[in-house]
Amino acid sequence: MTTPSRRDLANAIRFLAADAVQAANSGHPGMPMGMADIAQVLWGDFLSHNPANPKWVNRDRFVLSNGHGSMLQYALLHLSGYALSINDLKQFRQLNSKTAGHPEAHATPGVETTTGPLGQGLANAVGMALAEKLLAQRFNQPGHAIVDHHTWVFLGDGCLMEGISHEACSLAGTLGLGKLIALYDDNNISIDGEVHGWFTDDTPKRFEAYGWQVIRHVDGHDPEEIAQAIRTAKAEVERPTLICCKTTIGFGSPNKAGKESSHGAPLGKDELAATRQALGWPYAAFEVPREMYAAWDAKQAGSAREAAWDRAFDAYQSAHPALASEFSRRMSGQLPQDFAALADAYIAKLQAEGPVVASRKASQMAIEAFAPGLPELIGGSADLAGSNLTLWKGSKSVVSDDADANYVYYGVREFGMTAIANGLALHGGFIPYDATFLVFADYSRNALRMSALIPAGSIHVFTHDSIGLGEDGPTHQPVEHLASLRYIPNNSVWRPCDAVESAVAWKAAIEHRAGPSCLIFSRQNLPHQHRSTQQVADIARGGYVLSDPAEARFDVILIATGSEVELAMEAARQLDAQGVKARVVSMPNTEVFQRQPLEWREGVLPSWCRKRVAVEAGVTGFWRQYVGLDGKVIGIDSFGASAPANVLYQHFGITVEAVVDAAKSL
Amino acid sequence: MTTPSRRDLANAIRFLAADAVQAANSGHPGMPMGMADIAQVLWGDFLSHNPANPKWVNRDRFVLSNGHGSMLQYALLHLSGYALSINDLKQFRQLNSKTAGHPEAHATPGVETTTGPLGQGLANAVGMALAEKLLAQRFNQPGHAIVDHHTWVFLGDGCLMEGISHEACSLAGTLGLGKLIALYDDNNISIDGEVHGWFTDDTPKRFEAYGWQVIRHVDGHDPEEIAQAIRTAKAEVERPTLICCKTTIGFGSPNKAGKESSHGAPLGKDELAATRQALGWPYAAFEVPREMYAAWDAKQAGSAREAAWDRAFDAYQSAHPALASEFSRRMSGQLPQDFAALADAYIAKLQAEGPVVASRKASQMAIEAFAPGLPELIGGSADLAGSNLTLWKGSKSVVSDDADANYVYYGVREFGMTAIANGLALHGGFIPYDATFLVFADYSRNALRMSALIPAGSIHVFTHDSIGLGEDGPTHQPVEHLASLRYIPNNSVWRPCDAVESAVAWKAAIEHRAGPSCLIFSRQNLPHQHRSTQQVADIARGGYVLSDPAEARFDVILIATGSEVELAMEAARQLDAQGVKARVVSMPNTEVFQRQPLEWREGVLPSWCRKRVAVEAGVTGFWRQYVGLDGKVIGIDSFGASAPANVLYQHFGITVEAVVDAAKSL
Repeated sequence: MTTPSRRDLANAIRFLAADAVQAANSGHPGMPMGMADIAQVLWGDFLSHNPANPKWVNRDRFVLSNGHGSMLQYALLHLSGYALSINDLKQFRQLNSKTAGHPEAHATPGVETTTGPLGQGLANAVGMALAEKLLAQRFNQPGHAIVDHHTWVFLGDGCLMEGISHEACSLAGTLGLGKLIALYDDNNISIDGEVHGWFTDDTPKRFEAYGWQVIRHVDGHDPEEIAQAIRTAKAEVERPTLICCKTTIGFGSPNKAGKESSHGAPLGKDELAATRQALGWPYAAFEVPREMYAAWDAKQAGSAREAAWDRAFDAYQSAHPALASEFSRRMSGQLPQDFAALADAYIAKLQAEGPVVASRKASQMAIEAFAPGLPELIGGSADLAGSNLTLWKGSKSVVSDDADANYVYYGVREFGMTAIANGLALHGGFIPYDATFLVFADYSRNALRMSALIPAGSIHVFTHDSIGLGEDGPTHQPVEHLASLRYIPNNSVWRPCDAVESAVAWKAAIEHRAGPSCLIFSRQNLPHQHRSTQQVADIARGGYVLSDPAEARFDVILIATGSEVELAMEAARQLDAQGVKARVVSMPNTEVFQRQPLEWREGVLPSWCRKRVAVEAGVTGFWRQYVGLDGKVIGIDSFGASAPANVLYQHFGITVEAVVDAAKSL
Repeated sequence: MTTPSRRDLANAIRFLAADAVQAANSGHPGMPMGMADIAQVLWGDFLSHNPANPKWVNRDRFVLSNGHGSMLQYALLHLSGYALSINDLKQFRQLNSKTAGHPEAHATPGVETTTGPLGQGLANAVGMALAEKLLAQRFNQPGHAIVDHHTWVFLGDGCLMEGISHEACSLAGTLGLGKLIALYDDNNISIDGEVHGWFTDDTPKRFEAYGWQVIRHVDGHDPEEIAQAIRTAKAEVERPTLICCKTTIGFGSPNKAGKESSHGAPLGKDELAATRQALGWPYAAFEVPREMYAAWDAKQAGSAREAAWDRAFDAYQSAHPALASEFSRRMSGQLPQDFAALADAYIAKLQAEGPVVASRKASQMAIEAFAPGLPELIGGSADLAGSNLTLWKGSKSVVSDDADANYVYYGVREFGMTAIANGLALHGGFIPYDATFLVFADYSRNALRMSALIPAGSIHVFTHDSIGLGEDGPTHQPVEHLASLRYIPNNSVWRPCDAVESAVAWKAAIEHRAGPSCLIFSRQNLPHQHRSTQQVADIARGGYVLSDPAEARFDVILIATGSEVELAMEAARQLDAQGVKARVVSMPNTEVFQRQPLEWREGVLPSWCRKRVAVEAGVTGFWRQYVGLDGKVIGIDSFGASAPANVLYQHFGITVEAVVDAAKSL
C-alpha cells in the first residue's frame, strides 16, 4: 500500500470500532461503521484542530450527539494523533479507561462534551456555536479575527426524535448560528428497527421551518458528495446548516448492514471476519498499517494551525492589548482578581443594610452588583425573565451583533436552555446562568444532571420555590424538587433565607467552576437575619449556627432553609419564652455542608443533641439524614394547592406553631 | 337584547375571565380574551358533549393545553351548563374551590386533564385521540359506530416551543390521528414579549413536515373563518389538523390588548372598566344576562346527544352483546372479574418454580401472563422494546387498523410517550404501560409527576435500574432516580427483587387505578427468594420480613430492595455464621409500606432495633428515614462508571462484605 484511499482510511475507523466492541463484548458498532466515510472527510479535510493541544481556544468544536457511537470518536482521536493510544482503545468500556461506553469530557482528551442521552450533544453544540458568535462579536477587530471556528455535530434519528432537538434547533435558527454545521446520519434505523413505523417526519422541511440551510440527499458513503456539502455549509454564514446524509448502518457487514442488529451489540466473531473479507481489510484486530496512521496524522497540520493562530493573536495583542488580555483571562476561566473582594464588600453592605425582599429579587440585586465586573456572565430565562428576575441593567439580547450581547431569551424551552447553557460553559469564555420556575426543573432534569456529570459550571436559577408561589397551584408548586436536585451527585444546591445568603450563594456559584450550581429563590418576601461578621463568613460552609440561646446551651436544634428560616427563628423565640432553649441552624446548601470537616459539622449539629426539628416547604424524608428517627420534620409530602401563599402555609401546617409543637414533643 | 350575537357570547367569556382574575388578584386574562371567539364557535357549533354527564363515554374530549388560560375553560363549563356555578367562578384560585389556578381534572367536572406545564395537554390529547382510534377499531361494527368522537386541543406559542410538542405531534402525524384537531392561538406574544426574538419557526411548515393538515391564516376573531376551518378539519380523516388562528391577546382591552402585560396579571380596575366600555359590556362583574345563558346552554342538546348515543348503543348491544359488554367493562375501568385470582395463581406458580431471571425478563413474563386476559393493556417503549422487554406474543403495532392493535412504538420520545400514555389512561378503555431506561425517567419527569397529580393510572416501566447495567456508563446509570421518583407524591414505585416480587408489582400496578405506578427492573439476573405463602401475600404491603434467624430473635435488621436483596440475604448468612443474628426486610415499595398500619410497620421494623443497615444501589440519604442516625446505608452517592457490572459493584463497594462490615460496626 502506498497512498491509502479515503475508503481505506474510513475502514480503519470501522475496524477499530468493531474490534473494540467485540473485545469489550459490549457497545455499538453500527453507527461508527455507518458514519466512517463522513467522519473521514470532515476530519481529514475540514476540521480545524490540533491533536497536541485539545484545549487550543480557537479549535473547531466537534460533538458526537449520537454518543453511543463513541468508538467513532475514539478512533478519530487516536488516528489523528490525540493522547489516546491503541491500548486505550483496547480498554474500551473498562474501569478507569479513557474510553468509556459513551464519550466523557472529563475522561478523554479531545472530547468536548459528554454525550449519550440523545439530543443533548446537539443542544450543547448550539451553545458552543453561540459562544463562538458572541466572543467574535466581543473580541474580533477589523483585520483580527481571533475567534473564528466552526462547531460540528454528528447526530442520528434518535437525536431528531427527542424534543430537545426541536427546542435547540428552533432557537439556533432564530439566532442565526451560521457556523453550526450538523451532519445527520440518516440510516433509517433505530433500536426498534426501521423507523417508518414511528418516525416519518420530513426532516429537511422541518429544519427549513426553523430557518436552517438544509442540504438534502447526500450519499454518506460518497466522499465527494460529502465534501461538496460541507463546502456549501461553510459558505453559508447567516444560517446553521443541516446536511442530511443517507447512510447504511453497519456499513460493510454482509449480514447486519442496514439492520438494527448492528446497532447495539458486537457483530460477533464470524460476522466480523466476514466484514473483513467484504471490505478487503486484511489486518488483525487493533492493527492499523503505518501508511494509514501517516495519512490520518493531524499533529503537524494542527500544530501549524495553532502556531499561525498564535502569530495572529500576537498581532492582535499588539494592536489591542486590553482586549487580548481580557480574552485570555476569560478563556482561561479565571475570574477578575478583584471579584472576591468586591463580592465580599457587597455582602457585608447587605448584611448591614438588611433589605427585606423576595430572594428572587435578592438574586437580581446580586446579578446587578456582580455582572458589571463579569462580562463572562451570560444570562437567560425560559420566557420568565420578569418572574425569575434575571435581567439587569446591562442585559442585551444575543439576537444582535452588539459586542455586549449577554442575555438569551430562550423561549419556553427549559431542556434546550439548560443544555445550551452547558455548551456555553464548555466552550469557554462564559459563565452562563439560566432560569425557570423550580417546578420546571423537571423539564430540564437530565440536562441538569449532565451539568454535574460533564461537568459544566453552569448556574441554574430556579425561582418560585415552594407552595409559597400561591395561586398558580400544584402544577406550579415544587414539593419534591429540592430533595431531588440535591440527590444529583456533584450538584451544588443553594436555597438562601435572605438577601445576604442569596448574595453568598451567587458568589459561590460564580466561583464554583468545577460543576453546576442550582440557586433556589422564593417568590415571596423574606425578612433579613442578623449575623455577626463570622456568621456572614460561615454561610459559605453550607450550614451554620444562625442563632443560639443567650445561655449558650440549648435543648433542641431547629434546622431550616430558605423561606422557612423565618419560621424557625420565630419558633425559637416562642420556645425560649416557654423555657425551651433552641439553636437555629440555617442550612442553605447541604452538599457543601456535607463536604465540611467533621468538626464543623459536629460543631453545628452536635451528636449529643438528638432533639432536632427540620423545617422546609418540601418533602420531609430528605431531612431524616439530619434529624434521624428521634427528630421531627415539618414539610409537605403531598401536592400543593391553588390558594394565596399564606393560606397554603396554614393549610399544610408549615407554621411557627407546628415547629414549636414539634420541638416541645421531643 | 333578544338574540345575543356570537361576539356577545364570546364577551361573556371575556368578562367572566377578566373579572375572576381581578377578584382573585391573580391569574391570566389575556388568553381567554384572545381565544374567546374561537371557543364560542367550537363549543357553540361543534363540540359534542353533555354538560349533565361529563363522563359520557362518547363525548368529544377538549383539552386546554395552554392551561394558564383556565378561566376560559371554567367560563365555558359554567356557561354551557356543567356543575360549575357562578359562585365557583367567584372562588377562582381559592383553597378547595373547583376553580384552581390551572385546570385540574380531579377537581372540576368537565376538565379532561390537568394542564399548565406547557405542551403536555397537547400530548395528552394525542393519547386521547389514539385511544379513540383504537377503541373504534376494536369495537365499531358495520352500521354501529359507537366510538366516534373528536379530540380538540387549544394551544399557544409556549406549547409549540416546548420539545414535547415535537415529540407528540411528530408521532400523531405518523399515527394518522385524523380526529385530533388543534387550534393554535397565534397571538405573537409570550411572557417575555413579542416572540420574534426567540420564536421564529414557520409553524405551519413544521406541522406539514409531521404529516398534519395545516389550515393557515385563520382570523381568530372571525367566527365564519373559524367555523369554516373547523369544518375543513373535520372533513380530513387521515391526518390530524392544526388550525392556525391569528388572535390578539387580551382582545378588547384598550391599553393591554396585543401586549404581554395582559398575559399573567389582572387587567386592573380601570383597565377592566375601559374594556367594558370598549366592548360594550354594561354588566356587572360575574353578571351574565339570561339571554346569554340561554344561548350558551348546552344541557338539552347534550342530553339529546347522549340519549341518541344510548339508543345506538342499545342497538349495538342487541347485535353484538359480547362486544358491548366488553366495551362497557373497559370504559368503566373494571378489571375482568377473574383477574386477581388468575394473577395470584401465576404468582404462586412462580414462587413454586423459582425462576432465576433479570427482573426485566420477569416483567415480560408477567405481561405475557396477564395481557391475554387484559385487552385494555396497551404497551410501548421509547425505542427500547428489546431492552425493556415490553413486547409480548400478542403485541401488535398501533400503526395498523388491526382490532387487536395494542403496542405503541413511541420512538425516542420519553416525555411525549409518558404524556401520551397519560392521555390513553384518561380517555378510558385502556391501561397504558410505557418504558425506557430508568436514567431516562429524567427526560419524562414532569409527565411522571403529572401522572401522579392528575392522577392517571399509567404504568411506567423502567429497566436497567442501577450501575448494574454496566458498560454503558454513568450517562446511562441511575443513581438518584429511585429516591427522586419515590419523592413524587402519590407515585407508587416498585423495585422487586425477583420474579415473584416482579409479578406482584405488575398485579398491584394493574389494580392501582387511582394513580401511576413505576416498575423498576434490573438488567442483570436476580436469584429467586424462598417465601412462605404468607410471605408471598406480604409482598403487596410494600415491605415485609423476607428472612428471620432460626432463633427468631435478631440483633440487626438489613433492609434492601431489588438487586441488593440478594446481597442482604448472603450478608445475613455470613453474619449468622459469625454469631450476629440478622433479619432481612425486603422493601419493594416504600410508598405502599408507609401507608400500612403502624402495627405492620412496627412488626417489620420494630422501634427497639436501631441496628439497621439499608442497602440499595442508589443514593444513601433516602434510607436515613429507615435507619436513622444510628444505622448505616450501603449505596452510591457519586456517578457510576463504564465497566462490567460486577466490577462496578466491587468498585463502588456495594457488596456482601460491606453489608456484613456495616452490620458488625453497629
